[in-house]
Amino acid sequence: MSQARLEERARAVLERCRAAGARLAVAEACTGGLITASLTEVPGASAVLERGLVPYSNESKEELLGVPRELLVAHGAVSAEVVRAMAEGLLARAPVKLALAETGIAGPGGGTPTKPVGLVFLALARPGAPTVVERHVFPGVRGEIRQAASLRGLELLLEQLGAGS
Amino acid sequence: MSQARLEERARAVLERCRAAGARLAVAEACTGGLITASLTEVPGASAVLERGLVPYSNESKEELLGVPRELLVAHGAVSAEVVRAMAEGLLARAPVKLALAETGIAGPGGGTPTKPVGLVFLALARPGAPTVVERHVFPGVRGEIRQAASLRGLELLLEQLGAGS
Repeated sequence: MSQARLEERARAVLERCRAAGARLAVAEACTGGLITASLTEVPGASAVLERGLVPYSNESKEELLGVPRELLVAHGAVSAEVVRAMAEGLLARAPVKLALAETGIAGPGGGTPTKPVGLVFLALARPGAPTVVERHVFPGVRGEIRQAASLRGLELLLEQLGAGS
Repeated sequence: MSQARLEERARAVLERCRAAGARLAVAEACTGGLITASLTEVPGASAVLERGLVPYSNESKEELLGVPRELLVAHGAVSAEVVRAMAEGLLARAPVKLALAETGIAGPGGGTPTKPVGLVFLALARPGAPTVVERHVFPGVRGEIRQAASLRGLELLLEQLGAGS
């Protein structure tokens, strides 16, 4: 796992998006900007990436993505329900064909028996298609979890671009 | 210039914000998530960082930060006027005491004689204080410009936290 690998995958995502004529938006919580930064490291990213959001507070998840407060209260910010709402809220608000969302617990604090450090949810929303939601528990420390989650986010994009575009 | 240096400065920013009881929001264009990713690499960042935004398209600068379209048309997205509006718009919308904004041309394309590759504007807005706006031209290639701009953004925060909090 390395920064170079992230950038290689980011480059592939941008190429496939460009070929598919699909713009992309990202909302990422525990990866905290890493997915967006990997994409924007590639020259010409601005033709594909419309916006990146790091809605770190619950307030910002509500305001920027329209995640209902009830959902945050009922399930917690790190949940399948919230990541789905993040992705679908992003798709509804940004002029894009692909909306990727991520939320997780990067640690070292914040873990519980049912929601351990390393727990990450990813979601990809597209117009007219069911939203894909994934749950992962990544091993390692904070930086490793963030990198693994970012890499999986990019791979999810690649899989969906390969499958449907 | 290195990722380690960025993370060391990010750590110092978070410590000073915590000591000052000041939450922070970031809106970054050509740095593309690098400032936010540096901050969120530090454990406990969520107590200080309220949100990070990468408003890559002009539309997203209008929608997420309230930057007036006239300003974007008249001065271009990479201008002192727009970076000021980004920082002040962010401060008005996020429940924070510090709003850092950045816009620039990371290259390799996009430069002109009057707005060369490496041109970066930074702005820091705080309640009840004049907004600080800086203009820089950083040397190097895309990755170096993004790192230098990110580092200067963090240093601007540290200077203002030292001066006024």
